[in-house]
Amino acid sequence: MSKSKSGLSQRSGWAADQPIGFLMHKALAHPELVSLAAGFVDQASLPSEATRSAAASLLADGERARAALQYGTTNGDPMLRRQILERLAAADGGSGALDEERVVLTPGSNQMLYLLAETLLDPGDIVLCDAPSYFVFMGIVKNMGAQARGVATDEQGMRMDALEAELEDRAAAGELGRVKAIYVVSYFDNPRSVSLAAERRGRLVELAKRYSREHPLYVIEDAAYRELRYAGDDEKSVLAHDIDGQHVIYAGTFSKSFSPGVRVGYGILPKSLLDPLLAIKGNLDFGSPHFSQRLISEVLRLSLYDPHVELLRDVYQRKQTAMLRALDLHLGQKGLARYLRPHGGLYVWVELVQDIDTGQHGKLFPLAVEEGVLYVPGAYFFCDVQSAPRSCMRLSFGVQSEERVEAGIAKLARAIERAVV
Amino acid sequence: MSKSKSGLSQRSGWAADQPIGFLMHKALAHPELVSLAAGFVDQASLPSEATRSAAASLLADGERARAALQYGTTNGDPMLRRQILERLAAADGGSGALDEERVVLTPGSNQMLYLLAETLLDPGDIVLCDAPSYFVFMGIVKNMGAQARGVATDEQGMRMDALEAELEDRAAAGELGRVKAIYVVSYFDNPRSVSLAAERRGRLVELAKRYSREHPLYVIEDAAYRELRYAGDDEKSVLAHDIDGQHVIYAGTFSKSFSPGVRVGYGILPKSLLDPLLAIKGNLDFGSPHFSQRLISEVLRLSLYDPHVELLRDVYQRKQTAMLRALDLHLGQKGLARYLRPHGGLYVWVELVQDIDTGQHGKLFPLAVEEGVLYVPGAYFFCDVQSAPRSCMRLSFGVQSEERVEAGIAKLARAIERAVV
Repeated sequence: MSKSKSGLSQRSGWAADQPIGFLMHKALAHPELVSLAAGFVDQASLPSEATRSAAASLLADGERARAALQYGTTNGDPMLRRQILERLAAADGGSGALDEERVVLTPGSNQMLYLLAETLLDPGDIVLCDAPSYFVFMGIVKNMGAQARGVATDEQGMRMDALEAELEDRAAAGELGRVKAIYVVSYFDNPRSVSLAAERRGRLVELAKRYSREHPLYVIEDAAYRELRYAGDDEKSVLAHDIDGQHVIYAGTFSKSFSPGVRVGYGILPKSLLDPLLAIKGNLDFGSPHFSQRLISEVLRLSLYDPHVELLRDVYQRKQTAMLRALDLHLGQKGLARYLRPHGGLYVWVELVQDIDTGQHGKLFPLAVEEGVLYVPGAYFFCDVQSAPRSCMRLSFGVQSEERVEAGIAKLARAIERAVV
Repeated sequence: MSKSKSGLSQRSGWAADQPIGFLMHKALAHPELVSLAAGFVDQASLPSEATRSAAASLLADGERARAALQYGTTNGDPMLRRQILERLAAADGGSGALDEERVVLTPGSNQMLYLLAETLLDPGDIVLCDAPSYFVFMGIVKNMGAQARGVATDEQGMRMDALEAELEDRAAAGELGRVKAIYVVSYFDNPRSVSLAAERRGRLVELAKRYSREHPLYVIEDAAYRELRYAGDDEKSVLAHDIDGQHVIYAGTFSKSFSPGVRVGYGILPKSLLDPLLAIKGNLDFGSPHFSQRLISEVLRLSLYDPHVELLRDVYQRKQTAMLRALDLHLGQKGLARYLRPHGGLYVWVELVQDIDTGQHGKLFPLAVEEGVLYVPGAYFFCDVQSAPRSCMRLSFGVQSEERVEAGIAKLARAIERAVV
């Protein structure tokens, strides 16, 4: 049926194809496959006891319970918004321009990313992203009829010289008015688990300011993985470099660090964006589930959160070590692949030494399925899939046990050896 | 700042002004006012004990707890979707074309309404609504740059002769391709607590089919208040009349009948809309909070839901009776106002006998605030505020106690008597 005959909106067409749908179908149809593709979190360490304690405490008193069961406000529970700012101030070392009015709670940070896109993007607009970057965000941009453009990265995250060159090019092409935001996953990003270098963070804010010629150019800082740090020190956020509070949006979540099922995320916004974003959120859901917000607030109040994050760091570090050890054994020492050794996050980014197409229709993917393992082809993380590097992949150690991670890498290595021949 | 200088999207402009924002500000700034305006639910009857039992049961077993704390799927928990269909089949007497695949869970039914608008509407498109209708839905339509057009109603809901005439007019104007949906709150609607008459329900589906000339014309049946019935028998849904399952979307929620804070709603969709709507939902949040879904499912499994609905019916019926009795005493018997005597819902719709402007800038509103009471001006429930009747209002008995409801009506009557002079 043509678009007009279907009666669907243009957006429906823009949203239509999800590149990794085939992976989910494959995983569902073949549950025996070891999925190093799924971006889910570790099942065994989900905080059943902490949640039980917090729920019991929250619901013990009738009045507090009923308050949690009533509607909340569109911007979210004031107590949790304060707790979020306190934690952020502690992590960033003070919080000059921050006040709780700037915090908006969402069910996961994904809705915050969607609301930002709704608030900022018209069809034809441009968002600059890392190459490679989080494909779900690129899907959101596409859903609005806008365009995500990749900026070159290295092992320190987005290259500021490449960003500046891209902004100059857009200005020269008369398209600067179309560039609405720069999106970075600033800590242990998806897909490479790379963090934006400390010395680039202030520079990023500077560039956003300098190119705010026709309208404010925003930086969307996605800090979803900030707490999943297994080595080294925490860095100040990009937000902390935005002294006047006019350019950076900080999106955070309790999904990775506590529970994706409770699903509480948030954004910290420049004041200029609050009214427009909340007007759209008012239409969308006039506020995220209040009970989930009160539950997370209670987890924090009872000091159940930090011990859980400590536990998670330990669990994931062991899995990451298992994956890197297996990669060394089966691929690295044989000279078949190169990969980053990240200090946090849930992913390892692998580049094959030989030029083998890792895509769905390439040589390797069916061999990997035959051997019993799934990965995400690297090209899906690039704005322009056509010109993306062909021979890389994202491996996740979030879901599988150490043993399954190791078995999965062994299977992958056999598939790669068969593809190389 | 002009739109282009602000850098915001067109949608931000469309979403900008919420007609009842001033009411919320007024209520916040003057907490001593008796608000008969707020559409919230009764606080004292919120199900703290049922939620406590369900949460304890859900979290008692580590494995079930962890499953609830993990990500769910984009369409939602399969168990709850089955439970919803079972209940609907029981209420509607069998469910021919229904299967659980057609159910999509959302945080409240409001997100379902938003997703439907995203899926169906381009700027310039048209949705036909009751006059008067739920202003939040009209706001969603406006947010998409589309237009809500009112269809005349009587005490049996939307008039089918008026709907047919409107569809003919649109066809004659060459605009039928623009008409994407007909929106009805089929049970105890907002703002009048009027239900669509049984004999109009099949006719509504027939008209939607007959005018599906250029593309499918959908009926969005909002059944948010179905369970808040205090007298009379339940009617079959409009959905039950859609034998081939291609035209009606049924939106339901546990917010009014259980807890708006847990916030679980759903839609039952024609299969043709599932993929496009789920693609957009995948970008928005890839699935609503799983824990809330499991919690509501547990409430149903433990048979805690129906007793709570029974309790609510009793509570609200008493409040409704108190409001009608006070209206009779202070306004009806004095010949100052006419009002409907509904069999369910949370609202009473009042029309003043004299032509007094009830709007924010009219004569009555400041007098009501002086006397200490808030109401929602009736004109806000009409698509075209300019041509809307001036002298009606929506009164809600959801939030206030019986005593406060009575006091509020006495205050309102004094304001009206002062305005009449």
